[in-house]
Amino acid sequence: MTTHASRKGHMTLPVETGQEDVVLDLFQRWQADTLRDSDGTTMPDSLAQQDSDIYSVMCLVRADQEFANLHPEYLHRKYLMSFPVTAMSEDIVIQPLDGYSKDKYELDDDSDPKTWWEVRNRTTNEVVSPELWAFDTAKQQVVVSNATLYHEYAVTFMARQVWDSVSMYNALTNDWKGPRIKSLDPYHPECRAHLIKHFAHWLETHPNTSVVRFTTFAFLFVIDTGEKNQDIYRDWTGYGETVSPRALQDFEERFGYALTPEDFVDAGYYNGTYKVPSKRYQDWMTFVQDFVVDFAGELVEMAHKAGKKTAMFQGDHWIGTEPFLASYQKIGLDINIGAVEDGVALRRLTDSSGDQVREARFYPYFFPDVFREGNDPVIESMSNWTKIRRAMLQKPLDRIGYGGYLSLANKFPHFIDHVTEVSAQFGEYLEHTQRTESQKIPGKIAVLSAWGKTRSWLQNQARDQRFYVPPRPDVMEFVGNNLLECLSGLPFEVEFISFDDIADKGISSDIKVIINTGDANSAWSGGEHWDKPEVLVALRKFVAQGGGLLGVCDPSAYQKNGRYFQLGDVFGLEKETALTMGRVAMPVQVNRDHYLFKQLNGSMDFGNPSYVYPQADDIDVIAAQGQHLALTAREYGQGRAVYLGNLPFSMDNARLLQHVLVWLGQNENGEHAWLSSHPDVDCAYFPETGKAAAVNFSDEPQSLEVLDHLGNLRLIQLKPYEWRWF
Amino acid sequence: MTTHASRKGHMTLPVETGQEDVVLDLFQRWQADTLRDSDGTTMPDSLAQQDSDIYSVMCLVRADQEFANLHPEYLHRKYLMSFPVTAMSEDIVIQPLDGYSKDKYELDDDSDPKTWWEVRNRTTNEVVSPELWAFDTAKQQVVVSNATLYHEYAVTFMARQVWDSVSMYNALTNDWKGPRIKSLDPYHPECRAHLIKHFAHWLETHPNTSVVRFTTFAFLFVIDTGEKNQDIYRDWTGYGETVSPRALQDFEERFGYALTPEDFVDAGYYNGTYKVPSKRYQDWMTFVQDFVVDFAGELVEMAHKAGKKTAMFQGDHWIGTEPFLASYQKIGLDINIGAVEDGVALRRLTDSSGDQVREARFYPYFFPDVFREGNDPVIESMSNWTKIRRAMLQKPLDRIGYGGYLSLANKFPHFIDHVTEVSAQFGEYLEHTQRTESQKIPGKIAVLSAWGKTRSWLQNQARDQRFYVPPRPDVMEFVGNNLLECLSGLPFEVEFISFDDIADKGISSDIKVIINTGDANSAWSGGEHWDKPEVLVALRKFVAQGGGLLGVCDPSAYQKNGRYFQLGDVFGLEKETALTMGRVAMPVQVNRDHYLFKQLNGSMDFGNPSYVYPQADDIDVIAAQGQHLALTAREYGQGRAVYLGNLPFSMDNARLLQHVLVWLGQNENGEHAWLSSHPDVDCAYFPETGKAAAVNFSDEPQSLEVLDHLGNLRLIQLKPYEWRWF
Repeated sequence: MTTHASRKGHMTLPVETGQEDVVLDLFQRWQADTLRDSDGTTMPDSLAQQDSDIYSVMCLVRADQEFANLHPEYLHRKYLMSFPVTAMSEDIVIQPLDGYSKDKYELDDDSDPKTWWEVRNRTTNEVVSPELWAFDTAKQQVVVSNATLYHEYAVTFMARQVWDSVSMYNALTNDWKGPRIKSLDPYHPECRAHLIKHFAHWLETHPNTSVVRFTTFAFLFVIDTGEKNQDIYRDWTGYGETVSPRALQDFEERFGYALTPEDFVDAGYYNGTYKVPSKRYQDWMTFVQDFVVDFAGELVEMAHKAGKKTAMFQGDHWIGTEPFLASYQKIGLDINIGAVEDGVALRRLTDSSGDQVREARFYPYFFPDVFREGNDPVIESMSNWTKIRRAMLQKPLDRIGYGGYLSLANKFPHFIDHVTEVSAQFGEYLEHTQRTESQKIPGKIAVLSAWGKTRSWLQNQARDQRFYVPPRPDVMEFVGNNLLECLSGLPFEVEFISFDDIADKGISSDIKVIINTGDANSAWSGGEHWDKPEVLVALRKFVAQGGGLLGVCDPSAYQKNGRYFQLGDVFGLEKETALTMGRVAMPVQVNRDHYLFKQLNGSMDFGNPSYVYPQADDIDVIAAQGQHLALTAREYGQGRAVYLGNLPFSMDNARLLQHVLVWLGQNENGEHAWLSSHPDVDCAYFPETGKAAAVNFSDEPQSLEVLDHLGNLRLIQLKPYEWRWF
Repeated sequence: MTTHASRKGHMTLPVETGQEDVVLDLFQRWQADTLRDSDGTTMPDSLAQQDSDIYSVMCLVRADQEFANLHPEYLHRKYLMSFPVTAMSEDIVIQPLDGYSKDKYELDDDSDPKTWWEVRNRTTNEVVSPELWAFDTAKQQVVVSNATLYHEYAVTFMARQVWDSVSMYNALTNDWKGPRIKSLDPYHPECRAHLIKHFAHWLETHPNTSVVRFTTFAFLFVIDTGEKNQDIYRDWTGYGETVSPRALQDFEERFGYALTPEDFVDAGYYNGTYKVPSKRYQDWMTFVQDFVVDFAGELVEMAHKAGKKTAMFQGDHWIGTEPFLASYQKIGLDINIGAVEDGVALRRLTDSSGDQVREARFYPYFFPDVFREGNDPVIESMSNWTKIRRAMLQKPLDRIGYGGYLSLANKFPHFIDHVTEVSAQFGEYLEHTQRTESQKIPGKIAVLSAWGKTRSWLQNQARDQRFYVPPRPDVMEFVGNNLLECLSGLPFEVEFISFDDIADKGISSDIKVIINTGDANSAWSGGEHWDKPEVLVALRKFVAQGGGLLGVCDPSAYQKNGRYFQLGDVFGLEKETALTMGRVAMPVQVNRDHYLFKQLNGSMDFGNPSYVYPQADDIDVIAAQGQHLALTAREYGQGRAVYLGNLPFSMDNARLLQHVLVWLGQNENGEHAWLSSHPDVDCAYFPETGKAAAVNFSDEPQSLEVLDHLGNLRLIQLKPYEWRWF
């Protein structure tokens, strides 16, 4: 291990009162240059004088609890759908909050139920006339008359949130004490004015702060909470908690039509990010984004005027301030901080446009759930770091940081040494790359989804995830199809495009391969977007004229016109959805002579059986699970198409993806400098600095031969987890 | 082994020229009383004089090849959809028969393409105006002009079948020599008149025949054949090969609307039996049925007038003469012969109404594919027989029989002994049951599907079947969900009902439990029938008032109004189809105190993970695969609901199904005489004869305790495969 004492720091260190000595020690060993307070910790006065940047956390919507307690009309509100009630008689009673947390929600008595609520027959999806139901304020219940027997009814109501989701989580999970925190909705001009005033005062009273680290500008992610205070629905990037009568009225004025309660509760699906968004809901998102950008811009400007820089922590709360939105740059932030647990999260941070400094906040937090006796926090950290390093080789990262209680981390000397090494590796990375970008294989890769650029590098949760109970609910562990993680560390230029992009602008000529990956019905696969002939035409033409098309899981899935996979004609296959069971299964024959077959090493993981079968005669089957196709290739016009049943993340799968993309881009005969074909080792070449790197993902020594940029074959031998520069 | 030489026979024996001695020997040993010829064999003159019934096979539509060769206009026709062609230019050429067997199909030049064919844009599903395409007779191709680039086009054309599917199968699979047989369509009055004349002559020239054994009255099952003469689509009960311009014209006159080519090719799905049938296609089936019943009735009457009895072999060709149709009884047949490989096939034979004699034709045929050196035909036969015996205990069977070449069977003395034993067991069964029915557990079980009674005991093929390549294509081996096979040997009264039955007549009061089993989209699950509020109301009411509901695989599956399982409110659960991934998975807790949990023995097979999760708080989870629900129970009003993820056939699963049905019928506290709770042993009690039976499914000795009809607990010990009477 080398020492880097002479170098400038690059890490943000959390501070803790009473741990000043530890902070000062780690400030050196971990090459820190910045101190931060965070939720649950405060900045000791002695450290605030240290020669370093000082990040101070600012969550303005939670900052003034006194004001929040005085003004329930400014609390965050949301639409909830009551759990449906079956009519066992003609008069039925619905307690809207049945099944929901009474600690978190109250019925919003500021908004008139007859104006803002809605009762629906959920069996017929008809709205029940307001004349046929009444809200009993005293009993807090809705009474519906003339119900149809054995039909289901539900009321969509506006709920007021009297306990903030994050405060609730920390109280219930991390046993934090203290009052139940409420969040204010700055959409109300009076509330906004008060918060602005509060922030101005805060700026005046925090002279040592050099960077204001905003965690939430206006709205939280969505967590719906059940009656046992358990989470029942989560959407880390959802817009469900942005509603107020005032905002709805303004929306109608601007867009010329009114949204209904149903637009928000969405038959109980709540517009989950994994769903194909409706045009109406996208309008609402635009409306919210414009407000948040305006409000956040005002705060940032105030901070700048006070001589401070600004950062936003994008770990979870980023509603309206998603950095891939064009409007994001209007806010004027200086630093983007992302919570980063894997390669996808890293790319979500590094790949947005704008000249912000990018800082990765690593897991695990120094919290008791991980830093407890008998647990080794290095295991999680190393698992994350090996994924993150791959992705760092593709796009520049500027800084790193941690959060939590240093006193806890300091009880694990092995972990302290581990972070010392992580930070040292990061320092070498900065030195060798000089924030330049590594060389890519020619031809841009586009990932096609209903969201496109706005949800770039957002994990495409698969159905399997729903049936996996992770050990810690706040940390994502992705199971099932996970192409993005495989892709995050591969040497390709990547962009995310939407179906609307294709319809509006066509397919850009620099795109060489298009990927469509995800479960049927999801925003990732595209759902009803595949019901557009112009999309099918654009993609068929793209491939016919030489493009590559990669479909994973349920590409182009939409039941219509005799096909489930609408581009089944290009892929040469079809999925069995119980509509084609009479088509005779011919025993699948693998083409062992195919370029892609030769890239298989026997360790690829194709996940669940695909229920996909060959439909074209000229399809090349590369791999199958029994008779279920796992990997196929086909020529179509001058282009190529590949289908992959599933692609969970593993290094074998990541390397397979690299070979697939090379083949689809018709690059398989080219010579690519510093391109690894070893499953466990990634390489990268930085032409601007002339440096190259090889990094070993595994805990075993590895060796590989790789062509360098001078055309020489190099034998490289790496120790377990080693990252070496050339 | 006992001898039964003194008893009357009960078996139909195939004959073969040159094997007269073998026939006479087996006639005794196998307790035969009837001789039959069959496809590929003829009746030796010496045997035709034997003191026995003589079955003579009659396939009238294939009987006069000279006439068929002279009259191509009377050959069987069908609509085929050409494989879609992508428009790479504005003028495209479609060879309709591309991809189809040229040995089997010709373009039907008797029907004017512009009248009877259709060209469709398969990307938009629009019909292309006949002005924009032309048929080139010389080149046998369709030319489409003004095509939209990268849209797909297909022509639906009428094909003439110049090689009968059965003849083709026997030539290609069994290496039968001889000319390619053609089948005639008796719908044409001139053709019908000729066939009637032919049959009259046949009757005159077959004085020794006592039973005319019809194999096909008019139309075959559907087999579509690819250009390498391989099967590409099969529907053993499909109506695809019943079409002619004349019949279509008559249909229009009778029903007041015209069917289109699309009604038949169905976007390439061809109205597979597993699909929910359209009203239009059901009208067509009614039309065909009425014709076939009329024609078959005329033939049967002729046979009766000639002093002969009539049988129909329902193994495969039964289009229009399905015995569960009310119209079937109008034909006047005396004997129903069914090809029986398992319990479901046996029940398909035994459970129809009418006073026909029921004869089971067992597998394997004495054909070289099974009776070859190195193969043991007893294995297949015993596997079948153990399933069939279970089902025989539930409904009376009258006769058994075999088919094929006796000379082949005679090379396997072990098989000859095996059949001797099978026939002896069958003789005992006839003696002890006297064709009476065994006692059932109270409460009728109804299986609900889109077909209902008309497709009673038809195997509900599951998606998994599509990915299983059986060793012999003509023999069904069912994989995946197979509730019917489990049910076929259980002591319940069973009927099959349709959604239309429920809408028209409600749910009969003698029905205690309703089963809905099958893959989503299939006729078995019900597809769009679940989009009817009246169906949901009827079933919710049925359960609320005390009924039992069993859902297997995708019960009530139809995406609408916030649910995928439309009766998810009754079952208390939902399936993940990528629309609810934000709903938080709570770790599944099994209720070990539940009655059903106590019936599990650890050997149950729930097949694939269900992707189903709990939605109600008061659901009892009985079994799960990880977090995927496999077996759940719930009270709903006064009734009960059970969900089973999958139920492949095994004896453990069959016994589990018995326990589930007992619980759903609220019969779990009753005492049921001769009810087995041993997985491998079925029992039955025949109150009219006072006899009881126990039959061992397994190749191991088994013992069980069972309550007899006098209330005494009996210990029963059975040898491997033993069937004992009490």
